[in-house]
Amino acid sequence: MSAEPSLPTPSPAPRHGVWFIGARGSVATTAIAGCAAVAAGLHPPTGMVTETDPFTSCGLPSLSSLVFGGHDTVDCPLPKRAEHLAAGGVLPHGLPSAVHAELVAADREIRPGGPLPGDTDGDTDGGPVRGDDDWIDVFAADIRDFVARQGLAGAVVVNVASTEPAPADGSLPPSSLYAAAALRAGCPYVNFTPSTGLHHPALAALAESSGLPYAGRDGKTGQTLLRSVLGPMFLQRALAVRAWSGTNLLGGGDGAALADPAAAAAKNAGKERVLADTLGAAPEGEVHIDDVPALGDWKTAWDHIAFDGFLGSRMILQTIWQGCDSALAAPLVLDLARLAVRAREKGLTGPLGELGFYFKDPVGDGPSSLAEQYTELKRFAGRLRDDAETHEAHR
Amino acid sequence: MSAEPSLPTPSPAPRHGVWFIGARGSVATTAIAGCAAVAAGLHPPTGMVTETDPFTSCGLPSLSSLVFGGHDTVDCPLPKRAEHLAAGGVLPHGLPSAVHAELVAADREIRPGGPLPGDTDGDTDGGPVRGDDDWIDVFAADIRDFVARQGLAGAVVVNVASTEPAPADGSLPPSSLYAAAALRAGCPYVNFTPSTGLHHPALAALAESSGLPYAGRDGKTGQTLLRSVLGPMFLQRALAVRAWSGTNLLGGGDGAALADPAAAAAKNAGKERVLADTLGAAPEGEVHIDDVPALGDWKTAWDHIAFDGFLGSRMILQTIWQGCDSALAAPLVLDLARLAVRAREKGLTGPLGELGFYFKDPVGDGPSSLAEQYTELKRFAGRLRDDAETHEAHR
Amino acid sequence: MSAEPSLPTPSPAPRHGVWFIGARGSVATTAIAGCAAVAAGLHPPTGMVTETDPFTSCGLPSLSSLVFGGHDTVDCPLPKRAEHLAAGGVLPHGLPSAVHAELVAADREIRPGGPLPGDTDGDTDGGPVRGDDDWIDVFAADIRDFVARQGLAGAVVVNVASTEPAPADGSLPPSSLYAAAALRAGCPYVNFTPSTGLHHPALAALAESSGLPYAGRDGKTGQTLLRSVLGPMFLQRALAVRAWSGTNLLGGGDGAALADPAAAAAKNAGKERVLADTLGAAPEGEVHIDDVPALGDWKTAWDHIAFDGFLGSRMILQTIWQGCDSALAAPLVLDLARLAVRAREKGLTGPLGELGFYFKDPVGDGPSSLAEQYTELKRFAGRLRDDAETHEAHR
Amino acid sequence: MSAEPSLPTPSPAPRHGVWFIGARGSVATTAIAGCAAVAAGLHPPTGMVTETDPFTSCGLPSLSSLVFGGHDTVDCPLPKRAEHLAAGGVLPHGLPSAVHAELVAADREIRPGGPLPGDTDGDTDGGPVRGDDDWIDVFAADIRDFVARQGLAGAVVVNVASTEPAPADGSLPPSSLYAAAALRAGCPYVNFTPSTGLHHPALAALAESSGLPYAGRDGKTGQTLLRSVLGPMFLQRALAVRAWSGTNLLGGGDGAALADPAAAAAKNAGKERVLADTLGAAPEGEVHIDDVPALGDWKTAWDHIAFDGFLGSRMILQTIWQGCDSALAAPLVLDLARLAVRAREKGLTGPLGELGFYFKDPVGDGPSSLAEQYTELKRFAGRLRDDAETHEAHR
Repeated sequence: MSAEPSLPTPSPAPRHGVWFIGARGSVATTAIAGCAAVAAGLHPPTGMVTETDPFTSCGLPSLSSLVFGGHDTVDCPLPKRAEHLAAGGVLPHGLPSAVHAELVAADREIRPGGPLPGDTDGDTDGGPVRGDDDWIDVFAADIRDFVARQGLAGAVVVNVASTEPAPADGSLPPSSLYAAAALRAGCPYVNFTPSTGLHHPALAALAESSGLPYAGRDGKTGQTLLRSVLGPMFLQRALAVRAWSGTNLLGGGDGAALADPAAAAAKNAGKERVLADTLGAAPEGEVHIDDVPALGDWKTAWDHIAFDGFLGSRMILQTIWQGCDSALAAPLVLDLARLAVRAREKGLTGPLGELGFYFKDPVGDGPSSLAEQYTELKRFAGRLRDDAETHEAHR
Repeated sequence: MSAEPSLPTPSPAPRHGVWFIGARGSVATTAIAGCAAVAAGLHPPTGMVTETDPFTSCGLPSLSSLVFGGHDTVDCPLPKRAEHLAAGGVLPHGLPSAVHAELVAADREIRPGGPLPGDTDGDTDGGPVRGDDDWIDVFAADIRDFVARQGLAGAVVVNVASTEPAPADGSLPPSSLYAAAALRAGCPYVNFTPSTGLHHPALAALAESSGLPYAGRDGKTGQTLLRSVLGPMFLQRALAVRAWSGTNLLGGGDGAALADPAAAAAKNAGKERVLADTLGAAPEGEVHIDDVPALGDWKTAWDHIAFDGFLGSRMILQTIWQGCDSALAAPLVLDLARLAVRAREKGLTGPLGELGFYFKDPVGDGPSSLAEQYTELKRFAGRLRDDAETHEAHR
Repeated sequence: MSAEPSLPTPSPAPRHGVWFIGARGSVATTAIAGCAAVAAGLHPPTGMVTETDPFTSCGLPSLSSLVFGGHDTVDCPLPKRAEHLAAGGVLPHGLPSAVHAELVAADREIRPGGPLPGDTDGDTDGGPVRGDDDWIDVFAADIRDFVARQGLAGAVVVNVASTEPAPADGSLPPSSLYAAAALRAGCPYVNFTPSTGLHHPALAALAESSGLPYAGRDGKTGQTLLRSVLGPMFLQRALAVRAWSGTNLLGGGDGAALADPAAAAAKNAGKERVLADTLGAAPEGEVHIDDVPALGDWKTAWDHIAFDGFLGSRMILQTIWQGCDSALAAPLVLDLARLAVRAREKGLTGPLGELGFYFKDPVGDGPSSLAEQYTELKRFAGRLRDDAETHEAHR
Repeated sequence: MSAEPSLPTPSPAPRHGVWFIGARGSVATTAIAGCAAVAAGLHPPTGMVTETDPFTSCGLPSLSSLVFGGHDTVDCPLPKRAEHLAAGGVLPHGLPSAVHAELVAADREIRPGGPLPGDTDGDTDGGPVRGDDDWIDVFAADIRDFVARQGLAGAVVVNVASTEPAPADGSLPPSSLYAAAALRAGCPYVNFTPSTGLHHPALAALAESSGLPYAGRDGKTGQTLLRSVLGPMFLQRALAVRAWSGTNLLGGGDGAALADPAAAAAKNAGKERVLADTLGAAPEGEVHIDDVPALGDWKTAWDHIAFDGFLGSRMILQTIWQGCDSALAAPLVLDLARLAVRAREKGLTGPLGELGFYFKDPVGDGPSSLAEQYTELKRFAGRLRDDAETHEAHR
């Protein structure tokens, strides 16, 4: 991998920042610990698409070149958070101590997160009221400081915070403030959550003028991943899906956050879009998200699909997916950080529609079937690589 | 649709024969009754890929142009068989009487099937021993008579008989005798079962020299259909499948036939090939096929897939498929008959590798993921149509 | 079976009325058609506990002695309703015509149902306002007329109407008006639904003074039936249930009725009571009831039970129940009608706690495990029989 | 709890030996580690029926009074085995070190196991041929030495070794040699496996004359536990089970042992007996046991039950049980050891039929439904307690 001539080239090798919104959450902690573990050869890169062919040869930054930091509103240090995850079976026992130094280093680069919902208009300390623009400035400064302090070639901002309720009116929700800060700091932005982020009308002009690539939203990790391969199957086989119903059980912070109907509504919108897009029309059926603390970070998703076959025969497919959301999300988050860093390096700008493979509700107008999205993703790798080869050639 | 100039053109519109091996079985009965029902507008063509875009515009014979006949070793007339299927919920109540005339007509064109396993060397009547070649001649004559008697533009032979045990030695099993008869009668051949058919070394030269198109084998209707979309998902997401186990419960004739370990072995080989091909390596796990007469023609398939995610986290996907095999197979059989008729019309010869979408163990070297197979199938439609357009142009 | 000396003894054999609230619904239609079919020997009495030992020898009225009638607010005649159920696979094809005469006879005994929710205070015809007591009088008169017209030994009233929303305040909901009418007409009352029925404080005195037996409420047909056998298993094995979550998918009228959150709340209360009673404490977890019209009268219930084993090991049991609610309910409804008739005959009064086997939320203080409830039910049969024998002895 | 006057009474409190056949297997290791952990208050006694009412008040030996030893043919020391189990998630992390002393102490009391299948007739060292009786002597001496060396009030022998193939002829399989040794050493015997143990005709006289209590066989921990509660439900509700099919996936040593068709046959016989006994007749359907090493000690059991309801309506119940066999078995094994010790103390002899709650294929003629077995077990507790109270009274 090589940096472009027009960027400052740190010596001996450029390092790249990954700035997480929600840096002390399960996903970020798993990504940071896992990146260190895989880079050190302690684990194979299972779940990382960017470690498979053809993505290994398109100039992505190496895992060991990634430097982590971020914003969070909670205080629990990363090493302790990692211990909790290991106790819950999300991280292997022994991993938190094996990568303790990396966790401590990342934790040192975490800054207090900003406005909680409803907090955007004021401080509690009686000082002057801080407006949206002030918050964006504060966050952008945090990111710029991180890049400068660490001597990085740049940074990508990735939102992995808990899903926020859909904003009630035109005001900017926190996720949008962070997204704006990313652009203001000159960083590509990836929204792995269903929160608004850059999907806010007030940010459209900024996104367009920033000259930065961005991607999102709402990582496709489990039930919806399945739906994006099963939906096309029914369509291609001309089988008539009558009803598609689903229930998700999950504990952890995610379960509690999604027990809020407003947050669940945001999440379900993405799930339903996948069905409507892959089937051509939305079938009957609801999706439930239940908070079941006893399940911890493990999620169970049951889907029941009633479909008609030849001559109206009634058939049923049921699927039960039992996975660990953090372990499903973390490698994709690392993938996206690497792809966004490389896209920025290659001068790509605007919505990265070719990354629909990763999202429930992707930017752009790409296909909705996973297979076609994978084809797009490989084509995207080609765009990254072809340039790289050209560049290598004339060095 | 137009016939090629070099073929006799019946007037006013060509009719095409579909000759079923196993013509009184559940699949054939459902296909014959269903073809009549859909042609008459009694039911939508659910499950028929050839009734969706782009297949509707590539010159396939219409459903009403198809004329049915075949071989079978059982005597139960088609109208009675259809009543049984309606009682078991496979066909809608009322359908057998609605298409009674068509069932009677097809039943009149069914000839006694030939050698059962072990019968190929002799007759029981003390007459001269009938050898393989004699059987082939008898069967081919039956097919030629059908075409002549009905004044057809041609016929396609489709094997939908019960799975036969894998042949013990070099001798030709019955399915291969029928396959040879198809070619000898100048007909394209489709093998929808796991039986040997044209996959016999002794028939390789004949297949090559016949100048006829053929396709197979082993229709992909349920569990394997699912596997061909789920396998690629795991591969594309770099998730490590550790074990893939499955159990099939089915009654009907199929359950009994597959309770024979030799027949089950033939069927399972196809299922396992799909996994090995789509995952890159065969995972742990077995496949069971149980005969459960109480289930009748309805099949339940449970799959349990143990896979590793990031950092070795253990995850599980389970699927339960409850379908009616005959209703799943029949529309695909009609699709294949139409595609093979058209391929013959267009002068295509040899193995039709682009039809892998339909088979567990397809001829040729096509892709194994359903999505890629669908892309191939659409390309195949283009070959049929493009030629047609060219042809139309210079008429 | 013999009637008590103190009752008028019709000659040659007493006949007993079964008066359904909701007489044109799926459950009532299935019960009426099925009673005729079983009495005629067309089907075995599958699902009828009263046709198994020891219930066959405790003096219950024979199926052929039952005469049906009832109230309903809809007009669709029973024979037509039965045809609909046969088309949906609930009743066997051919059954509606085989028992046409019985359906017509029962339909002739159906009277227009009374007040819909919100209708209890007035008529729409501008006439005088009809109050609760007037409605009760009208309904009671309908029942008495039925008994007199048919020359019955008596009648039992069974509520199988759609679940009504929990009443908002102290007013009597329709189910309670019908329940009061039953008592006023001198009939035992069985509430097979979660609706209020006799569970209304305003009816407590009437219930006590009536000298009539009654039973309820909320028939235990599927998911809750399972829970009442699985709950005790966990308790007896000292396994710690952490969370019990469930989703029900159902179409038909029941699905639509229960899509009303207020009605669902009534139903869920019963389900949760079973868990809390059998486990000793209510675990985490929710229950969803989704209206999925595509499923018609067929119901699917998925339960996910997370439990801890030795040393805190995490284990999971999942159940998937696919049944037809009407076919599950109808034989139990016939059971209850026969048991209530016999209980009245034996002079039993008040809540029949021994019938907890049939209900989610039984009257009285009986056990909550199905096994113990079955033991109680057998003991109840003994009470019916022992008296009978005594009675036979001194005749 | 008090020892009987006729036994030597160690001071201050009697200690009791638990001698495991298969003492280094997963079940024994889990039982030994778990006993220490629960006795030390590190974990609640989840899964131990003897720690629930009424079993806590019937004079059972305390957990801290149990002393472990046994036979095994493998060398891996218990502390190391425990580490393996913790790595596989069967034991909590940290537990092996927390109970290290107890594991070391038990490991010191493990003696080399004897004849493997086929080894009973000779040694490999060229020495004199050792016959069955010699082996029994050696094993009995090991047990007596254990009791003497530790100063125990007595010992119970519990077979938790891998299932052995059903013996081909009349020769005594290893499990029977150990069982005979238990009796010869004056110890109660519990067979938690499907192996022959005392169920051998050649041991019938010995069992009868020994004056010792014994119990077995084949612990009911998962799929069969479920069957013993679901079977009675169908029977009591008069629902007609048509087919009951099952597949078990398990890794660990158990999976490999049961991949041997002969061993699986022994295990399946017990499972089928439970169905036939609880349903009144054996339904259609098979049971598969697959070795899936990727699953480690975790087992998944899928059951598919096709049953008929009223008027022949077709319904289905499916269950999926995901558990850890060792964690399910270990607390029951501790229960049984305590109950057998106490039964010996109370002078009970012969087959303990009241322990059918624990077994697939119980000795004696007890009921087959779990609920009735639980009632029997509580009655058994009463026998232990009542005597105890009497005894306490006249001390």
